[in-house]
Amino acid sequence: MVIAVDAVGGDLFPENPVAGGILALQEKKDLKILFAGPEGLIREELKKHNYDEDRVLLIDAPEIVTMEDASSTPLKSKKNSSISVGLKAHKSGDASAFISAGNTGALLAASTLILGKLDGVIRPTIAAIFPTIKGPGLLVDAGANLELKSEMYFQFAKMGTIYAEEIMGLKSPKVGLLNIGEESEKGCEIHKEAYQVLSKLDNFYGNLEGKGVMTGKADIFLTDGFTGNIMLKFGESIPETLKQLIENTAREMKISDDQKKLVFQILAKTMEQFDYQQFGGVPFMGVDGVSLVGHGGSSPLAIKNMILNASQCVEHDLNDKIVSSLNS
Amino acid sequence: MVIAVDAVGGDLFPENPVAGGILALQEKKDLKILFAGPEGLIREELKKHNYDEDRVLLIDAPEIVTMEDASSTPLKSKKNSSISVGLKAHKSGDASAFISAGNTGALLAASTLILGKLDGVIRPTIAAIFPTIKGPGLLVDAGANLELKSEMYFQFAKMGTIYAEEIMGLKSPKVGLLNIGEESEKGCEIHKEAYQVLSKLDNFYGNLEGKGVMTGKADIFLTDGFTGNIMLKFGESIPETLKQLIENTAREMKISDDQKKLVFQILAKTMEQFDYQQFGGVPFMGVDGVSLVGHGGSSPLAIKNMILNASQCVEHDLNDKIVSSLNS
Repeated sequence: MVIAVDAVGGDLFPENPVAGGILALQEKKDLKILFAGPEGLIREELKKHNYDEDRVLLIDAPEIVTMEDASSTPLKSKKNSSISVGLKAHKSGDASAFISAGNTGALLAASTLILGKLDGVIRPTIAAIFPTIKGPGLLVDAGANLELKSEMYFQFAKMGTIYAEEIMGLKSPKVGLLNIGEESEKGCEIHKEAYQVLSKLDNFYGNLEGKGVMTGKADIFLTDGFTGNIMLKFGESIPETLKQLIENTAREMKISDDQKKLVFQILAKTMEQFDYQQFGGVPFMGVDGVSLVGHGGSSPLAIKNMILNASQCVEHDLNDKIVSSLNS
Repeated sequence: MVIAVDAVGGDLFPENPVAGGILALQEKKDLKILFAGPEGLIREELKKHNYDEDRVLLIDAPEIVTMEDASSTPLKSKKNSSISVGLKAHKSGDASAFISAGNTGALLAASTLILGKLDGVIRPTIAAIFPTIKGPGLLVDAGANLELKSEMYFQFAKMGTIYAEEIMGLKSPKVGLLNIGEESEKGCEIHKEAYQVLSKLDNFYGNLEGKGVMTGKADIFLTDGFTGNIMLKFGESIPETLKQLIENTAREMKISDDQKKLVFQILAKTMEQFDYQQFGGVPFMGVDGVSLVGHGGSSPLAIKNMILNASQCVEHDLNDKIVSSLNS
């Protein structure tokens, strides 16, 4: 299996994408990596690593889409960017998947346009892993579609369910609709409509309040991309803010250095669950291909996990399962 | 000053409202409490307490609005409820303010209808205290208005600013508009419009992502009541879920009981900032009167703090300041 990797996506490139790709080769022996990006830059970076040359491919893409570029950039002004070239390599069959830690908006637009949508999909979506006391949950939509129609809630619930089952290994995941109260008539008109449509699903939990997320009342947290994106980034800020708050308390309480060390060890271990790196990245669900995006700050470890995650999406025939579910 | 207290609001009544009222009398010597609720029930409860009888008044309100009742209940089917009777006592001048730990929707509707709106106010709103690493912030709207027009964002920003300055003691509080990115063109149409209108304010920070809330990038977090309510309840769930997560870690790491005790002491102290009890409750801003609502689970301490908070709103002429700000 060949996975195309955006060598110039994220905050630290080509270092992290290249290092992550090499790590993935070490972990999964039947894998090849196709790096997309400025060829000279990649070749130079590869010199720092030991690897099996037969398993590393290159495709030249001299242009770089920055984090500040508009979503349309890979499609309009930078058609020779790693995003455009890498996705086209996947589309043509030269790679089974494409991963990037680059500009999410640009990746979503390019993935949708270059790969196309799966049969029956209204709009592709992006999910995010969200920690709960019962283990990782899935937040959909995490920012791709700011306003949803009720049918989109329905499709996102189905796609999220398949991802949760196949890739996250959750058994019988429950879908909760984020709302201001649990009763069916809560929320705006769109939430009442969505509730009705979602009621057709066997695994619909019902409405879920904000306090039901981290307590893990459901496994899949369904919401519009506006609320979802704010929730996601709020959640991501918890480990660091908590550390600062606890540091203040430790100072006030004048605890010893040894005690402080222990407290921070426990906190760090607890917060591992909030660490996006272990999940690497998430796919754009609903596109006719396997395209994953990771955090801009993705470490080599995160890139490696994103590549392995992509290979799982391929091996589990995620898209075939999505199509059958949507058209059943 | 007389403060009317809903004796049958919240999860544990009349115990907590009555105990909270008596606590407030002990702390603030120029205060009288007017309990509204079923007279016999209140008289029986008062027997458990020592208090100055001249400072405790009663107004009979035999009906009780439950947490499950519709918002219109105090106005339609239960006109003799503590909410209706208490608010009318405030409207007529028998009390300077009204507080309740009861049904928020019913309190908002009854406060708006019985007290009326302040001059120039489109819609009253409700705010919530939200902890940040820089101290308490203010989240507006916390659930009163699920969808906003841009002028409402503007008014809520102004009302929130006055509350933050006068009651929370914040100097030059900054208003941030919750959004999916900091750039002015981010979000749905309504957020772009709101951004333009808010730009007229001297204390507008700009757009704020979810990660900017707990890091305290602004003091006032402006959003629609749908997103605000989900954020609020999510935030409220942090202390308890964190405790459970850390307990799991402590078990895994097999730390000693003494060490565990220390860790939980530090955590508990840190989480005091997330404790709604210290703030007691928040006013419906924009109504022509002083009406505060607290958490259903309000303890006597929370009720006491809500009463003192109400007296501050009166003493600071909060509403006069809101009217001048909105009409300036």
